[in-house]
Amino acid sequence: MTPPRIDLSRWRAWARDALQDDFVAACIVAVLLIPQSLAYALLAGLPPQAGLYASLLPLVAYAALGSSPAMGVGPVALLSLMISQALAGAPAGVPASAVALVLAIEVGLMLALAAWWRLDALAALLSVPVLQGFETGAALSIALSQLPVLLGASAGGSSLPQVLQSWWQAATPWWPLTALYGLAALTALWLARRHTARWLQRHMRPEPAKLLERLAPLAVLMLAIGVSAFTGAGARGVELVGALPALHWTLAWPTLDLTLWRQLLPSAAPIALVTFVSSLVVAESLARRDGHRIEPRRELAGLAAANLAAGLSAGMPVAGSFTRSIVNLDAGARTRMAGVFTAALMALAIWLLGKPLALLPTAVLAATILVAVASVFDAAPFREAWRYSRSEGALMAVVAALTVVMGVGWALAVGVAGSIALLLQRTARPHVALIGRVPGTEHYRNVGRHEVQLTPGVVALRIDESLLFTNARQLADVVQQHVAGHPGTRRVVLLMSPVNRIDFSGLTALRALHELLHDRGIRLDLSEVKGPVLDGLNEGGWTAWFDGRLFLSHHQAMLDER
Amino acid sequence: MTPPRIDLSRWRAWARDALQDDFVAACIVAVLLIPQSLAYALLAGLPPQAGLYASLLPLVAYAALGSSPAMGVGPVALLSLMISQALAGAPAGVPASAVALVLAIEVGLMLALAAWWRLDALAALLSVPVLQGFETGAALSIALSQLPVLLGASAGGSSLPQVLQSWWQAATPWWPLTALYGLAALTALWLARRHTARWLQRHMRPEPAKLLERLAPLAVLMLAIGVSAFTGAGARGVELVGALPALHWTLAWPTLDLTLWRQLLPSAAPIALVTFVSSLVVAESLARRDGHRIEPRRELAGLAAANLAAGLSAGMPVAGSFTRSIVNLDAGARTRMAGVFTAALMALAIWLLGKPLALLPTAVLAATILVAVASVFDAAPFREAWRYSRSEGALMAVVAALTVVMGVGWALAVGVAGSIALLLQRTARPHVALIGRVPGTEHYRNVGRHEVQLTPGVVALRIDESLLFTNARQLADVVQQHVAGHPGTRRVVLLMSPVNRIDFSGLTALRALHELLHDRGIRLDLSEVKGPVLDGLNEGGWTAWFDGRLFLSHHQAMLDER
Repeated sequence: MTPPRIDLSRWRAWARDALQDDFVAACIVAVLLIPQSLAYALLAGLPPQAGLYASLLPLVAYAALGSSPAMGVGPVALLSLMISQALAGAPAGVPASAVALVLAIEVGLMLALAAWWRLDALAALLSVPVLQGFETGAALSIALSQLPVLLGASAGGSSLPQVLQSWWQAATPWWPLTALYGLAALTALWLARRHTARWLQRHMRPEPAKLLERLAPLAVLMLAIGVSAFTGAGARGVELVGALPALHWTLAWPTLDLTLWRQLLPSAAPIALVTFVSSLVVAESLARRDGHRIEPRRELAGLAAANLAAGLSAGMPVAGSFTRSIVNLDAGARTRMAGVFTAALMALAIWLLGKPLALLPTAVLAATILVAVASVFDAAPFREAWRYSRSEGALMAVVAALTVVMGVGWALAVGVAGSIALLLQRTARPHVALIGRVPGTEHYRNVGRHEVQLTPGVVALRIDESLLFTNARQLADVVQQHVAGHPGTRRVVLLMSPVNRIDFSGLTALRALHELLHDRGIRLDLSEVKGPVLDGLNEGGWTAWFDGRLFLSHHQAMLDER
Repeated sequence: MTPPRIDLSRWRAWARDALQDDFVAACIVAVLLIPQSLAYALLAGLPPQAGLYASLLPLVAYAALGSSPAMGVGPVALLSLMISQALAGAPAGVPASAVALVLAIEVGLMLALAAWWRLDALAALLSVPVLQGFETGAALSIALSQLPVLLGASAGGSSLPQVLQSWWQAATPWWPLTALYGLAALTALWLARRHTARWLQRHMRPEPAKLLERLAPLAVLMLAIGVSAFTGAGARGVELVGALPALHWTLAWPTLDLTLWRQLLPSAAPIALVTFVSSLVVAESLARRDGHRIEPRRELAGLAAANLAAGLSAGMPVAGSFTRSIVNLDAGARTRMAGVFTAALMALAIWLLGKPLALLPTAVLAATILVAVASVFDAAPFREAWRYSRSEGALMAVVAALTVVMGVGWALAVGVAGSIALLLQRTARPHVALIGRVPGTEHYRNVGRHEVQLTPGVVALRIDESLLFTNARQLADVVQQHVAGHPGTRRVVLLMSPVNRIDFSGLTALRALHELLHDRGIRLDLSEVKGPVLDGLNEGGWTAWFDGRLFLSHHQAMLDER
C-alpha cells in the first residue's frame, strides 16, 4: 500500500480561504461588538473600558480552549444585569471595576472546577420554562434600568423595586437634550432593524444589503458622536461616555481582599451557571445549523479561560452572545481564528476610536441596549407553555416575574426548585392502566381507551412510570385495588415496558408486592422487562425471592395459562 | 324487594366481641407502654411524667381522627432522639418540659396544615435508603446516648461528638452499683427476648407463652423496683426515676414566648416529617397484614390531633410505634377503641404505680431502650442496597453516618437532596437503543442484545426515558449520532412506549429534532405513543408543526414503507 499523499498546497489553499472567511466575519462582528461592549459595561454599572477590555483577551482565551467555531464570546446583556445586581450588594468603598474583576476570576475558577469535576450535566437543571421565563424577565429588567438613562434621568438598580425607588427619589430633573439624543438614536436603530433591511434588500443585492444593515448601529453611533462633538453636548449637560484610559497590556492582578472574595461567591455561582448554560444554548444552536458536535466540557474549559482572562485584563465576566455568534456564522466564520481576528480588530478600534468614543452620549448606548433586548419580548412561548401544561406555564411566568421583582438569583433558585418539584410530583402519581388484548392482535391496550378482551383470573397492569422512591410506596396499594376489583384472580402480570428504571425503593416495593400476592396464593409475573432493568435485578440477587415468571412479550405471558 | 333486616342482636354480639378483643390487646400494649414511656422520656432528656402523659390523651385523640385500627401511638425512640437534639439547641433557662410542649404543639399544627393542604405526598421524599440509613443511624445514636446512663456515668447529648465530649468531660466517676443494675437488667431483658420465648414455647401452649414473654420487661422493672426499695439504692448513689407529680387533668397551656416558638420551628419541621413518615410506614405495614386500606390524609389528621393533645396535656411529641402496633394487632385489636382502652389502663397504672416507679433506677430504663433499639441493627439492607446500586448503598451509609455525627436534621436534608440528585442524574442519562426486528415476529429489540434485522433507510430508536428537561437537551444530539452512523437514512422512527411523559422542555426538544430532520429531508415518525402523552401533545397543538406519522404498533411503522 502506498501511504496517502498529503497535498500541502491544497491544504494551504483551504487554510487561506478559511482564514479569509474568518477575517471577513471578524470585521462584521467587531462592528457589532464596539457599541455592544460599551453598552453592556454601562448596563452593568461599570466604566466603558471594562466592556472593551472584556472584548480582547477573553476572545483569544476562548479560541484556545473552546470547541465552538463560530461562538462570539464577550460582554452580554444577561450577565451585565447579574453583574449590576452583584455590584448593588457589594460592600461600599470598593470600586465597581475591582468587584467585576473578582467576579470574573471567581466565575472562571468555578467553570474550571466544573470542567474538571465533569459538572457539565448541571446544565440539565435549567428547564425551558425556567430559561425562557428568566430571559424575558431579564430583558424587562434591562429595559427598565435603561429607560432613565435614555431619558436623562439618573436612576440606579436593576430590579423593579430598586428602579422604582430611584425614579421616585431622583432629584435631578430629566434632561430634554439627553432624551432627544436617546429617542433619536432609538428611532434610528428601530427603523434600521425594522424597515431599512427590507428596503435595502429590495433595492440592492442581498450581500451588500446585509452588510449595510449590520453597519447601521455603528453608523448611528458615529453620527451621534459627530453631532455631540459639533454641538458641544457635554457642555450642555448631556452625559457622555468620557475619556477612556490608554490601552494598557499589563495584566492587572485583582484585589486580594479575602472578605470581598467570600462575599461575592454567592453572586458568582449563578453568574457561572448562567454563563455556561446560555453559552451552551448558543453553541448547540450553532452546531445544529451546520451539523458539527460540541463538547460541553470543552465549552466549560473555554469559558473558564475567557473569564480568567477577563479578570486578569481589567474586563468583566463574559459569555457567548447569541446575536454575535449568529452574525459570525452567517458572515462565514469557519474556525475559532475568527474570534482571534475580532479581538485584534477591537484592539485596533480602541486605539483609533478612543478619542471620539469619549464624546458619545450614554443615552445613545441605552438606545442600543433597548433595541437589542426588545427582540426577546415574545408572548408566544408563554402561551404555548400554558397551553401544553398549566403548571409549567405558571412556572415560566413566576420565574419571569421573580427576575424583575426579586432579582436573578432568587428567580433561578425558585425556577430550578419548581422544575424539580414538578418532576417529582409527576413521577409520584403514575398513570396506571388495566390492559387487555386488542382482538385478533398481539397488542395489549388500556381497557379505558380501547375495545379489548380481558383474560379471566389474570389481572394485567401497565404502570406508566419507572419504579422510584417517589411512587414505590403506592405500588402494593394500586395492585391490591385492582386485585380486589377482580375476585378470583390467580395471576398478576405487570407489563414492564414503561418501567425504565427500578431504584432500591422500587425493588423493595416490588418485593413487598410479591410477598403480599404470594401470601394470597396469587403469582406475580413480569413481561417485557427491559434489558438494563433486568440486569440490575439479577445483580441485586432477586432470584433469591422472586418465584414468578418472566416473558419476552406480554402476549406470551397472557397465553401462558391457556 | 324486602328491605334488608338489621339484626341488632348480632351486631351487639359482634361489638361485644370486638370490644373484648380490643380490651385484651390494650392490656398487653399497656404492659409494654409503661416502661417504654418512661424510657423514651429519659432518652429525650425530659422528666419521666412527660412520657406517661404522652401515653394518655394522645391515644384518645388519634382514635378520634386517625384511620389505622391497630396503630399504637405514643412516645417513640426516634422522636425522643430528635427531641433531645432540639432541647440541646433550645435557649438556656427554659425548662425542657416547656420546650417539649411547644414542640408537640408545633408538630401538631404542621401536621394539621399538611392534612389541610394535602401534603401527604411529601412522604414520597423519603426513599428506602434514606429511611433505612436514618433508622440505623438513629438506633446507633440512641445506644450511644444510653450507654453512660446504663453504666452510671453522667453524659448528655445524642450526636457522636456531643456524647464523646460529655464522656470526656464527665467529672463524676462511674458508679459500680448503678452499672450493676443496668447490666443485670440488660442481661435479663436480652435473655427474655432471645431465649425465654423459645424455652417457654417448648414447655407450654403458645398463647400463655407469648403473654409471659410480653410480661418480661414489666417483670424486670418490678424486680428492679423491689431490689431498689429493699436495698435503699437511692441512698447509695444510684440515680432513680424520682417521685412523679400527682396526675392532673387540667389542660396546660404551653408558654406563649414567641421567640421560643420561632426558634423551635426548624426543629419541629423534621420531627413532623419523621412523625408522619414513620407512622405511615407502620400503618402501611399493618394494612398489608390484614388487607385494609389506610388514608394518608386521615393519618395526618390523627397524628396532628395526637400531638396537639400531647402539647396541651404536659406530654411530648408522639408518633406511631412499630413494636406496640404489631403487638396490638397480634393481641387481637380490631378497632381504634383499643387505643382508648390503653389510655385508660395507663391512667390507672400511673395512679397505682406512681409511688413504686419513683424507686426505679434509670439504668434499668436505659437497659430497656438498648434492648429495644438493638433489634434495628442489621447489615443486610446495607449489603442489599450496595449490591443493587452502589450509589444508593453509599447514600444509605452516608445518611446513617450523618445521623450519628451531625444529627437528624442534617442527615434527612442530605438524604432527601441525595435521593433527588440520583433521580435527576438517572433521568439525565437515558439508555438509548437502536432497535431491529426479532426475525419472524412483530417484536423489536435492542440491536446490542438480540439477533435482529434492520430496515435499510430507517433508523428505529427506543429512548428508555420520559422526555424531560433533564435530558431534553441531548435528544437531537443522540438521534443525530445514529443518523450520522446510517448514511442514506430517509426516516427516523421513535418507539415511544418507554416515554411516560413529555414536559414542555421535552416538547421543545422534540420540535427542534423534527425541524432538524425535516431540513435534511428525513421524516420523523412516532410509534406506540401512550394515550395520556398523545392527549398532551394534541392539547399543546403539535399538529401545527408535526408532519410525521403516528403508528399504534412499531411493527406497522416499520412496514409503512415496504
